[in-house]
Amino acid sequence: MPTDADPQSTVNDPQRRSPTVIRVAVVGYGNLGRGVVHSVTQQPDMELVGVYTRRDPQGIDLGALGIESIRSVPVRHLDELAAHAATIDVAVLCGGSKDDLPQQGPDLLRWVNTVDSFDTHADIPDYFATMDGAARESAHVATIAVGWDPGLFSLQRMLSEAVLPQGETVTFWGPGLSQGHSDAIRRVEGVAAGVQYTVPRPSVLEAARAGDAVSNAATDRHERRCFVVLEPGANPDAVREAIVTMPNYFVGYETSVTFISAEELAAEHAAMPHGGVVIRSGGTADGTTQRIDFTLALESNPAFTASVLVAYARATHRIAQRGEPGAYTLYDIAPGLLSPRSAAELRRDLL
Amino acid sequence: MPTDADPQSTVNDPQRRSPTVIRVAVVGYGNLGRGVVHSVTQQPDMELVGVYTRRDPQGIDLGALGIESIRSVPVRHLDELAAHAATIDVAVLCGGSKDDLPQQGPDLLRWVNTVDSFDTHADIPDYFATMDGAARESAHVATIAVGWDPGLFSLQRMLSEAVLPQGETVTFWGPGLSQGHSDAIRRVEGVAAGVQYTVPRPSVLEAARAGDAVSNAATDRHERRCFVVLEPGANPDAVREAIVTMPNYFVGYETSVTFISAEELAAEHAAMPHGGVVIRSGGTADGTTQRIDFTLALESNPAFTASVLVAYARATHRIAQRGEPGAYTLYDIAPGLLSPRSAAELRRDLL
Repeated sequence: MPTDADPQSTVNDPQRRSPTVIRVAVVGYGNLGRGVVHSVTQQPDMELVGVYTRRDPQGIDLGALGIESIRSVPVRHLDELAAHAATIDVAVLCGGSKDDLPQQGPDLLRWVNTVDSFDTHADIPDYFATMDGAARESAHVATIAVGWDPGLFSLQRMLSEAVLPQGETVTFWGPGLSQGHSDAIRRVEGVAAGVQYTVPRPSVLEAARAGDAVSNAATDRHERRCFVVLEPGANPDAVREAIVTMPNYFVGYETSVTFISAEELAAEHAAMPHGGVVIRSGGTADGTTQRIDFTLALESNPAFTASVLVAYARATHRIAQRGEPGAYTLYDIAPGLLSPRSAAELRRDLL
Repeated sequence: MPTDADPQSTVNDPQRRSPTVIRVAVVGYGNLGRGVVHSVTQQPDMELVGVYTRRDPQGIDLGALGIESIRSVPVRHLDELAAHAATIDVAVLCGGSKDDLPQQGPDLLRWVNTVDSFDTHADIPDYFATMDGAARESAHVATIAVGWDPGLFSLQRMLSEAVLPQGETVTFWGPGLSQGHSDAIRRVEGVAAGVQYTVPRPSVLEAARAGDAVSNAATDRHERRCFVVLEPGANPDAVREAIVTMPNYFVGYETSVTFISAEELAAEHAAMPHGGVVIRSGGTADGTTQRIDFTLALESNPAFTASVLVAYARATHRIAQRGEPGAYTLYDIAPGLLSPRSAAELRRDLL
């Protein structure tokens, strides 16, 4: 799996480990953690040195991924991380923003550099302050809120606003599976299982691309499509009504509810696609209009989020090596630090 | 024109000048220089302090732009810049890459920080080395190769490769007016005037977006559409033949030549639209495919390039203030430095 363009590479080969290899630990082994493990095996300059979990480590079998180079990577309980901190250059935290990261982030920063995908937008300033304090205290680096939103979409919103200061930015999410809305459906009485897709309304997306003003309300820009498996004997009309009238999640949206069988759900709706578009239209002072579009089309939301985390793990390690502790966001990190290529190579080949 | 969100702002008001205002000089007053002048007037934290030209300064009338705040900005001969260097925080160099920048860049760095849109891809490593040496010698900062290609497209190529290391990146240019190809047409015998548009071939663009492998050759990915005004008595067939068989410029491309009147040229083809798309499709190691698209649709190529230059002028000034001299590219600059907003504000509002 490693690309190994460089014959001197020692990546994923512990016998030939060199000081230039970045030693990555994964904390938490759900969909995102698994994605990070996969992504590390794609990097020419990284080695997976451990998976840490709050569950029973015996329950995790890395061999099941079928990747030879990581078959012997240890899986340990999270409590053991501190004892192995000297073997870790950066820990990728794959827990949730609600309960895991606010605890684990500052705690683990005592021992290692971290990168995480904290994604509760409203709480980012507080989380940043906490992580910055903890990172400075232990002289580590913490990169927070990495992924695609927050993450690459945030970067895009910032960049396009800086370049076109007079204009409007619109973010569309989807087409994609929303975990939060799928969970909400599954809590409805009479629902055995279900998924929800968020889909930009084509006419609104088209208007935004044409530079027309569009509604600021997410409810006007998106549709919600639900695929639901009923429990035996459940009343479909009651279930539909409970879904479309659910406050915060569905009220105000154009929502469709389609009833399907458990077999169809398993066959057609097991993947976790997502994506979206950030569009900025802005006028330059000469009276002309310019548009910047950034689109993501992802077959797997967790696999892509993991890939972004791993690129920022590289940057996190490099900033730590420079001796510049503290908390960072995408806004604070020079893009070149994300690439395994040297600055001279980037200038020659990609600029 | 300044947005003046802050009531304390002293922008574009020399009577209330404060040390936080970035004083910008423009060097060269063609389409790009005019775009930079326009863009500076859109910024809440910048002041235009001078336009410098190799031509007769009397020939440039800033008042003609109709912008009150810059009516009294001095236009001076380039030879006078050194004498006024103490009034300039950063000079935006708007000359060409072939003859102007290789001379002016290192020369002006003796006196001021610079940002430029050097765009000869193959010569970037040499130009970087020259500018880096000159910048370090005089303790200034030079940001080079800023615009959209090289520029935002380069940033996008790098970022998307870092996030999806196993995949393909394809760049499409257009639909847009190519200055170089338009110049080439105008040199053909029998041509009085003309323009050339570069247009991505729809079927190839669609294939790239579908994640299919597409040709690496620019000739296969683009069409060239020429609109030509003939000189009296010129032979259209000979002109068409001379254009479509022109080496480097047109050979190998699907090229159309349409003859139009001088009036139609003036009425329909005076604008300078451009843009393009950078597409990266990459597989994550779990076997799923992700796609990142970055699209620019520009009504004015020089106005947009100018806007990018001005955002990087802000970053250039900030890096100089930190006392970190040398040459920089987009890869070396933390994105947050481009925004007039504070880091805390960016985290709160855009992350």
